Amino acid sequence: MEMQLTDHILRVVGLDETEKAILVSRFERRNVARRAALFGPKDSAGDLVFVEKGLLRLYSVDDEGKDKTFQFGVEGCWLADWSGFGETGAPGFSIQAIEDSRVVLIRRADYEPLLKAVPPLERYFRQVYQRAHKAAQRRARLRAASSAEETYRQFQRRYRGFVQRVPQYMLASFLGFSPEWLSKIRAKTS
Amino acid sequence: MEMQLTDHILRVVGLDETEKAILVSRFERRNVARRAALFGPKDSAGDLVFVEKGLLRLYSVDDEGKDKTFQFGVEGCWLADWSGFGETGAPGFSIQAIEDSRVVLIRRADYEPLLKAVPPLERYFRQVYQRAHKAAQRRARLRAASSAEETYRQFQRRYRGFVQRVPQYMLASFLGFSPEWLSKIRAKTS
Repeated sequence: MEMQLTDHILRVVGLDETEKAILVSRFERRNVARRAALFGPKDSAGDLVFVEKGLLRLYSVDDEGKDKTFQFGVEGCWLADWSGFGETGAPGFSIQAIEDSRVVLIRRADYEPLLKAVPPLERYFRQVYQRAHKAAQRRARLRAASSAEETYRQFQRRYRGFVQRVPQYMLASFLGFSPEWLSKIRAKTS
Repeated sequence: MEMQLTDHILRVVGLDETEKAILVSRFERRNVARRAALFGPKDSAGDLVFVEKGLLRLYSVDDEGKDKTFQFGVEGCWLADWSGFGETGAPGFSIQAIEDSRVVLIRRADYEPLLKAVPPLERYFRQVYQRAHKAAQRRARLRAASSAEETYRQFQRRYRGFVQRVPQYMLASFLGFSPEWLSKIRAKTS
């Protein structure tokens, strides 16, 4: 379901006309074709990416070519490289579209000034990051308390529609399993 | 180094006298002796815990008695069970002191009303959760890109003072290693 960033923000906080105008002036809307890179490991400077339509992922590829997905973003989600690795010269995360997508970028350099200029956004982003923290805690707990198979089934039950939109090897690396293991489990289920 | 919660907040945002008074009226200061539980799996309703002095951990024990640490909190850190598992009847996380500690509790029921009453706290907590997200991203990346041994060494370099305050088996479970593995590595280093 498509989700305009402005609507997403207005669900949480009220903005007056001046604040709305400032906000929109900092938006950069972009279409990203399926499989295209939005940011590679060299150019992700931590810009904030809001998904209005489609599906993207935040991932890295290590020296041995191993591809690991750390985060997925569907409509209404934020993705950003907060690691700061890029700034130290180490490769940052990459962001790539899994489906044809439309995103809104907020440049990292604009982010703190935007929050100063539009203070209600503090509440909005507080909730965004609080929810991310909550999701990470739930996922870590689930992984620790369950077998790999149970984790996958619970994840599938909770995010059924989403699981069908994602290639198997990406989901496997996100959940920390080998792709072979996931194929075996899926064969048993279907 | 001790850290008063009020000072920690005033580093980030300004508060007037009325706001300070409201804030302090929602604080509950508590001493927790070394090894004592602040919250067990049945009574952690997601209250927010700020560490003024000492060291605590957020952890769970599974059905087979396996103890897994998910988060440590030293002076200046927040710990809270955001998972919501407690509310669904499943056991929540537990929080326990590793050293004699002094904490400030904010009751979960008071948290959102407090943010409404003292709006600058939105900015403060936005930064708290943004930093938690950043740390989680860095840790996940480090784990994925490095061998277990390298992860441990990098963690040790970055948090040298902290590593010495924590029992070995807790650190091992936090980093996702077996205690035996960590003993072997430490023996090699010393």
